[in-house]
Amino acid sequence: MEILRQRILNEGRCLDGGILKVDSFVNHQLDPELMMKIGEEFGQRFAGLNINKIITVEASGIAPALMTGLMMKLPVIFAKKKHPSSMTSGFYQTEVKSFTKQQFYPLIISKEYLKFGENILFIDDFLAHGNAAKGIINLCAQAGASIAGLGFMIEKRFQQGGIWLRDKGYHVESLAIIDSLNDNEITFH
Amino acid sequence: MEILRQRILNEGRCLDGGILKVDSFVNHQLDPELMMKIGEEFGQRFAGLNINKIITVEASGIAPALMTGLMMKLPVIFAKKKHPSSMTSGFYQTEVKSFTKQQFYPLIISKEYLKFGENILFIDDFLAHGNAAKGIINLCAQAGASIAGLGFMIEKRFQQGGIWLRDKGYHVESLAIIDSLNDNEITFH
Repeated sequence: MEILRQRILNEGRCLDGGILKVDSFVNHQLDPELMMKIGEEFGQRFAGLNINKIITVEASGIAPALMTGLMMKLPVIFAKKKHPSSMTSGFYQTEVKSFTKQQFYPLIISKEYLKFGENILFIDDFLAHGNAAKGIINLCAQAGASIAGLGFMIEKRFQQGGIWLRDKGYHVESLAIIDSLNDNEITFH
Repeated sequence: MEILRQRILNEGRCLDGGILKVDSFVNHQLDPELMMKIGEEFGQRFAGLNINKIITVEASGIAPALMTGLMMKLPVIFAKKKHPSSMTSGFYQTEVKSFTKQQFYPLIISKEYLKFGENILFIDDFLAHGNAAKGIINLCAQAGASIAGLGFMIEKRFQQGGIWLRDKGYHVESLAIIDSLNDNEITFH
């Protein structure tokens, strides 16, 4: 997606350890018009797959997932990273390692909103090692729901998560795929 | 806003301690079309105020703020509740008490995205005691930014935050105002 690649080139900053900082339009400040175009793009790429629901992870996944849900006329669930005191009717839970923060956190979805037989589209901001994606695949397996596809704004291909997912046969769509981040030089695939 | 009040009546559940659970369309599952209508409504109510930027708080504020930003053609900042390791260029920080979780958390905005002289619209899902709103007012004061208005999807009037804000002269718009939550009976203002 050319406008996304341009934004990454213009505003992205490479930090140590393979981190791409895009706080100006993804992880702290949001550009609503860009997010709408991202939702349109995901809507086209995942059209016709009989998807029932979109799942994302709080907080940075919410904007692209919401816009994809608007375009595809589907509800959006955001998985929580903490156990909410008001989640009283049972939930699916798994443990995920954060690449950026180098710590483990839980991923939680209420049993009220993820059901047996549902066909799920997972949308997130980044695909690095694929840990959040694997966590959502785990939650869907617990519920007996299937994965129709996984869509990411930015895939860091050198961190292998996308390779793992495609090898397993999942339908993965990444709008900007980065081969390397070296000395503040961003190389797209 | 009648469609929002209807959703609250149909799907909201009253929990102990004055908590209204609206996980099916605000705090866990999202209805993108409803959020777009909410964005349109805030856009109308805050039109013509020369607003530069919308601020919200992760995670449940992101959806209504993003849709308001889309309608008003404004960038959206989500304040963070944890210090991100990649926020390297300075930030404003304050401490806020969560009503639902009964614990303190930090509210953080990078100095890159909140500047002296900017005119800010704060959008959030709930107004209860007003602690998040007071936190954002504090961050804006630190930056020398002004508050053009504060918009909330749901105000729990009996918890006094809205009364405090209006007494201080702030322009507050709440799309559904609840006077009481008793024995699972929701009474609107």
